[in-house]
Amino acid sequence: MIRNALGRELPESIPGYGVVKPFLGHDKRVPEGNRDGGRIKATFGNQTDKVLPDIKAAIAASGLKSGMTVSFHHHLRNGDYVVNMVIDACAEMGIRDLTLFPTALFGVHKKLIPHIKSGVIRRIMGSVNGPIGQLVSEGGMEEPVVLRSHGGRPRAVTCGDVHIDVAFLAAPRADRYGNLSGVGSKSACGSLGYAFTDAMYADCVVAVTDCLQPYPIGNVSISQLYVDFVVAVESIGDPAGIVSGTTQITRDPLRLLISRYAAQLIEASPYFKNGISFQTGAGGIPLAVTAFMKEAMKRREVKGSFGLGGITGYFVDLLKEGYVERLLDVQSFDLEAVRSIASNPDHVEISADWYANPWNKGCAVNMLDVVILGATELDKDFNANVNTEADGALLHGIGGHQDTAAGAKLTIISQPLLRGRIPCVVDSVYSVTTPGEVVDAVVTEYGVTINPRRQDLIDAAKEAGNFPLLSMEELLAKAKDLVGPMEPVQTEERIVGVIEWRDGTVIDVVRQLKAKA
Amino acid sequence: MIRNALGRELPESIPGYGVVKPFLGHDKRVPEGNRDGGRIKATFGNQTDKVLPDIKAAIAASGLKSGMTVSFHHHLRNGDYVVNMVIDACAEMGIRDLTLFPTALFGVHKKLIPHIKSGVIRRIMGSVNGPIGQLVSEGGMEEPVVLRSHGGRPRAVTCGDVHIDVAFLAAPRADRYGNLSGVGSKSACGSLGYAFTDAMYADCVVAVTDCLQPYPIGNVSISQLYVDFVVAVESIGDPAGIVSGTTQITRDPLRLLISRYAAQLIEASPYFKNGISFQTGAGGIPLAVTAFMKEAMKRREVKGSFGLGGITGYFVDLLKEGYVERLLDVQSFDLEAVRSIASNPDHVEISADWYANPWNKGCAVNMLDVVILGATELDKDFNANVNTEADGALLHGIGGHQDTAAGAKLTIISQPLLRGRIPCVVDSVYSVTTPGEVVDAVVTEYGVTINPRRQDLIDAAKEAGNFPLLSMEELLAKAKDLVGPMEPVQTEERIVGVIEWRDGTVIDVVRQLKAKA
Repeated sequence: MIRNALGRELPESIPGYGVVKPFLGHDKRVPEGNRDGGRIKATFGNQTDKVLPDIKAAIAASGLKSGMTVSFHHHLRNGDYVVNMVIDACAEMGIRDLTLFPTALFGVHKKLIPHIKSGVIRRIMGSVNGPIGQLVSEGGMEEPVVLRSHGGRPRAVTCGDVHIDVAFLAAPRADRYGNLSGVGSKSACGSLGYAFTDAMYADCVVAVTDCLQPYPIGNVSISQLYVDFVVAVESIGDPAGIVSGTTQITRDPLRLLISRYAAQLIEASPYFKNGISFQTGAGGIPLAVTAFMKEAMKRREVKGSFGLGGITGYFVDLLKEGYVERLLDVQSFDLEAVRSIASNPDHVEISADWYANPWNKGCAVNMLDVVILGATELDKDFNANVNTEADGALLHGIGGHQDTAAGAKLTIISQPLLRGRIPCVVDSVYSVTTPGEVVDAVVTEYGVTINPRRQDLIDAAKEAGNFPLLSMEELLAKAKDLVGPMEPVQTEERIVGVIEWRDGTVIDVVRQLKAKA
Repeated sequence: MIRNALGRELPESIPGYGVVKPFLGHDKRVPEGNRDGGRIKATFGNQTDKVLPDIKAAIAASGLKSGMTVSFHHHLRNGDYVVNMVIDACAEMGIRDLTLFPTALFGVHKKLIPHIKSGVIRRIMGSVNGPIGQLVSEGGMEEPVVLRSHGGRPRAVTCGDVHIDVAFLAAPRADRYGNLSGVGSKSACGSLGYAFTDAMYADCVVAVTDCLQPYPIGNVSISQLYVDFVVAVESIGDPAGIVSGTTQITRDPLRLLISRYAAQLIEASPYFKNGISFQTGAGGIPLAVTAFMKEAMKRREVKGSFGLGGITGYFVDLLKEGYVERLLDVQSFDLEAVRSIASNPDHVEISADWYANPWNKGCAVNMLDVVILGATELDKDFNANVNTEADGALLHGIGGHQDTAAGAKLTIISQPLLRGRIPCVVDSVYSVTTPGEVVDAVVTEYGVTINPRRQDLIDAAKEAGNFPLLSMEELLAKAKDLVGPMEPVQTEERIVGVIEWRDGTVIDVVRQLKAKA
């Protein structure tokens, strides 16, 4: 066994994963060598139509064989039909032992479970939200799931840690020569940010669309120069599952209180000035934080520079009203965001590489001032866990958590101290996703708890003096007072999940849950 | 010596170039292996400013050393200050033996001649328009110039034939984190199409700008994720040399006649129907052809799909008036095109890779119906020479000549039979740029000459019956009648230029001119 920089015990190598590079600390690992490159292909002048009759024809043309790696993006979220459709076809064609490399799987992908059990899918590298995560936690897969952040995934692809044999890209709109767009059709999802690296680095790229239009389409996200084949199907997804309706700010008084404290911390910080940039995501609390920030920006005549990440209608309003100059959008959450990215040139689609990859010439999170995040639990060292639940089940992906925390000048985790009877602050988190060295503050209904590493912030908060401050020890004591000691998670030795830090080192592992008696 | 598919005699290997892969014919060479990848680099979260004080600081930071390869794009055309500025700085820093890998050099770059003579520049791979071409032709460089088409150049980079150590990118607008734009400033040039591959594949990328704006700028062409350093200088170029004023259609009656014949051939062809796409470039004849085509499109109610290539104000009007749905722009020639690409989402910036690279999943020229080209001379087999003048001097680059001829369904070379006393049709061209197998017709003031390989076109032209048709033999006889036999070019044995076909094979070489007595 070895210990990484957080003191987590890790084996030197994990079956189905390989040699473990232990986490060295934030911004420590320096890469060597050159970027990976997909297979070179010539396209002759008479090859002017990439459309194939169906998924099976595309699988055959792609050269996909048992044992290979197939990738998918998750912009269709819980409305996606494409992953299931492709894996069903692989199963019918007798292809087995696939490594599935999605950006994320959702509840709709529980249909893959029979294919996992029958050996069509041997391994998953990607976020396993929900039912497949539960299966994995209970030991239902032979090889461990590998979890990477939104930035860690393109890093792994561009440096060659993961080589994609065939990328299947759900495309809301396409032309016969493989130009792909995320807008302007019934299955519109907005940004195709997560799909860029797959398109650029896979040996073969198959686009699956339900809206084939004459060449060349407008609003191209992914260019023809990366796409081998196009398949038109009846439907790539359920619009109701692809985008939500208008995102709502929380109305819960407790959550509003937390949001107000967080906004007050931001206002007290040195970053609250012209040019401020922020990422808040789509949750109820973060949206409320944004609303309070907007009030403060108006009151103090502060203009922001950009909003980043997953974009909601709420951010679109900030852009329209001039509170930010640009939106950098890796994922469009709602209909308003989809409409905006299709028509507003200051609402810019960015790739996951651009968004968050630590191994390029500089990703967008590095330029971020403030990010509001959540976590299932935090510990006294401010280490955050977003992957496993209190019972140890691996139910959530990393998303941009590691990346934004690492990049932002002010990383705030804001949430109620208790979820039911479960505290969000504990002595030591069950699994670490994001190390405390990149978490600056925790905000709960009891006030603001600042990482002692950030004395400058503590001073600024004291000077503002308009919100309660409490130390991590005080917050932890409060949690213990309220709920008493927690039962430790019961596990087997076997590792079912590997959590990579965004630079490819292993920050923690997740073990198989003990079967309940 | 070996002979390529056109019967041209070539050495098996050329000093300063290497092993010669002989031209096999259009769309014959099939690549193997994987794409090249630049060096991987980590950018830590505290590295949030890429601006360096001056060019020398950037050269030092880039690690550029004697013997390395430096690349440049030519979007600033004859207004460019950046190439001279960088090479001057290299010379002052004692860096020597550089391989210069520009997309093209112009008259303004004659200031490089002392650096060639002193050994700062050892080799040039790229178009040498004008004075440097003259120098090369007379034997003024030790190693041969390597000429590649707009598609052949990104092919060479992406497959690893050329590895760029440091790319210097002239950027009309930039932010401190290396997002680059071609529009919205005093040095605006529109599309940055030729710069994309350099940015994506070089080990190190230095942007040189004269307009530094707050992060993140809008209208980004090249993203921060590819740029290492940014240098702000007083001026990157002379606007008068960067873009021309409004492009003009020829008023010369002879050229108008040629243009009318060419337009009539297009109208007679099977491609004149809804969805037609075309590239005509910026010359007087091609613009007049476009004007005649527009009349025909109006009369016959035909709507086009896209205009491709170097874009002029004339094409912008076609877009605005609905004659084409989109412009795919690799180079914006005039102020109207620059304004349009900045504001019209249907005026799309494309990279040279997207435009013309034969070794990706499918470039735009493959989707092209009609292209109007020129040539310094053509021979009885329809082989075209665009690189050397009648006296054998290597004065012109290939541009997109090979690529569009290879991709388009109808490739027309249109020009007067004589330039002064020099005929454009000869028995055998001095050097071949583009093989006759991809040239469909030659149009002169005497009418239309169709390649016998295209019997379908000959039939269609006869059926139309509204323009004179003559055979290549008749055209050649006319040329000989008018000017008599031409003096053959007198050369030394030494090879001073290598003309690659777009797939990396050698289609011809250019030899040193015999010194005039």
